[in-house]
Amino acid sequence: MKVVVIGCSGHYYSFIEALESGLEAEFAGFAKGVDDEVCQGFISAFKEKYGFRVYENYLEMLDEVKPDIAIVNSHFNLNSRITLDAFERGVSCYTEKPVATTLEDLQLLKKGYERSGVHFSAMLEMRYTPAFRAACQAIKSGKVGDVLMITAQKSYKLGQRREFFKKRETFGGTIPWVGIHAIDWIRWLSGREFKSVDARHSTMFNNGHGDLETAAICFFELEGGGFASVNMDYLRPASAKTHGDDRVRVVGSKGIVEVMHGKAVIIDQDGERDLELSETVNPFVDFLHQVESKGKCLVSAEDAFKATEAGLYARQSADEGKRLYFSY
Amino acid sequence: MKVVVIGCSGHYYSFIEALESGLEAEFAGFAKGVDDEVCQGFISAFKEKYGFRVYENYLEMLDEVKPDIAIVNSHFNLNSRITLDAFERGVSCYTEKPVATTLEDLQLLKKGYERSGVHFSAMLEMRYTPAFRAACQAIKSGKVGDVLMITAQKSYKLGQRREFFKKRETFGGTIPWVGIHAIDWIRWLSGREFKSVDARHSTMFNNGHGDLETAAICFFELEGGGFASVNMDYLRPASAKTHGDDRVRVVGSKGIVEVMHGKAVIIDQDGERDLELSETVNPFVDFLHQVESKGKCLVSAEDAFKATEAGLYARQSADEGKRLYFSY
Repeated sequence: MKVVVIGCSGHYYSFIEALESGLEAEFAGFAKGVDDEVCQGFISAFKEKYGFRVYENYLEMLDEVKPDIAIVNSHFNLNSRITLDAFERGVSCYTEKPVATTLEDLQLLKKGYERSGVHFSAMLEMRYTPAFRAACQAIKSGKVGDVLMITAQKSYKLGQRREFFKKRETFGGTIPWVGIHAIDWIRWLSGREFKSVDARHSTMFNNGHGDLETAAICFFELEGGGFASVNMDYLRPASAKTHGDDRVRVVGSKGIVEVMHGKAVIIDQDGERDLELSETVNPFVDFLHQVESKGKCLVSAEDAFKATEAGLYARQSADEGKRLYFSY
Repeated sequence: MKVVVIGCSGHYYSFIEALESGLEAEFAGFAKGVDDEVCQGFISAFKEKYGFRVYENYLEMLDEVKPDIAIVNSHFNLNSRITLDAFERGVSCYTEKPVATTLEDLQLLKKGYERSGVHFSAMLEMRYTPAFRAACQAIKSGKVGDVLMITAQKSYKLGQRREFFKKRETFGGTIPWVGIHAIDWIRWLSGREFKSVDARHSTMFNNGHGDLETAAICFFELEGGGFASVNMDYLRPASAKTHGDDRVRVVGSKGIVEVMHGKAVIIDQDGERDLELSETVNPFVDFLHQVESKGKCLVSAEDAFKATEAGLYARQSADEGKRLYFSY
């Protein structure tokens, strides 16, 4: 398998980790999605070790290298165009979420995917963390019965972000960038689609970060009954013990499952206890196995599109201060 | 101070606890708000010890005993009428929340209060629990800066509830009965009023409890910026270690305070740590001191009205499936 990386403003790291763990794949090329210092840092860190060629232009790389897989994680607003260009060349893509930062770009990308016949997944990698997988397993095995309500949280330290985080056009917004993980958990854990969303966000106290929203709440009604909310913030103090404080709580007819602080806890008819954590799986390797026809990866193309779409609808709801209904 | 109790379907227990701790007050009478077995149980448990007279009719009791304070906790839909009757006789009231189960009753009660000149508070007793008081103290002393987002949770075991819980008319709904505590925390901890609400609730999986809602989410926009959500459920399994799982998380410009599992945790510039818990205060005694002009109690008449109003607006939003704007 020939793999190329485009940009380095996202979660390319699963690929590097896989290589370091002995994955048999060729790191065939790296293209700077946007020429910035971070890409120079990437090149310094990995070029000598993996011997990839560096391209200024990703199209040139795609045409020359003809890779099996492109890992797309440039500046967020560029990822959908880059992915679409790869689709058109028959290249499967592992793309940073959100896979588009506007609904128009998302439509183009979906159409391009349908025409292409390639494989596609997004870096919704939190599904792979042991506690979230354990929670999902418990739910799918029926331990909490029918899911009625899900509440989820993302909380990050802000620190000093790069310039492109400060503009809506290049960043996309905190709901589609940060909240999307939690939005994805809702679909994944409930097995239901979104019906409507009411959202609010605010840029207050963003410490000179321009358009970047520091907090948001998204409230979803689900198809087939039930509802869910996601609260997210960039206001986790620098002194906190960990970078993030990610949580989900799933209330069902027969029990409650919750993920918090890296643990998964269930309360059901058998009492209250920690769930056994599932083994760690590398998200990129899971996708690679799908490309190799060895199985289906955990985040399907549909999952990538739906989570992105829901994030963009929620952002629009917050921008416009009104409820939006999903129209798939 | 002469105190009477009307009904026993609520949190009269703070009064009993105060008496058992040596409060100097006369338990002068008990009226069955609604004649049911529970009232007979109350009489059996306490009549001999405290020597109060028992009345079939609370109006007769109010007119004969002329108490300083009435503790009102009959069936939920009756409490506003009973409280209003006490106001009209110049009797201060400590009333179960919600203080009314319809917006019409609430309006009548507010007008009655304004005419009466008596003291009034509601059994929003969770404000008094040590962890919530410690969180409030930290916020009011500026430790988290300006509050931007609050998320709160109420989760209870359902068990088998009495018949009047099964009808909207007599129960009022899970949002005004259970959620009201968390709704009250939002006003209390943010110092802001509600601007709009989007809410959803469901009666699914209520195990034969008729109209009783098993889960709900209320999403509030606050005056002056910021937003908040409350999720609540009656689906906490019987096997859980405690009856309730009450939480609040307050995100501010300089830090985050959270109450969970009876502890209050802060993360601010000085790091992550447990807050020292405040000393326990008896809510009824706090109100009694106000009636005795010894201070102001923690839950003002305005707090009681505003929390009730917000709960009733949220219920209506959930019933009608649309956003409502508050018009004070």
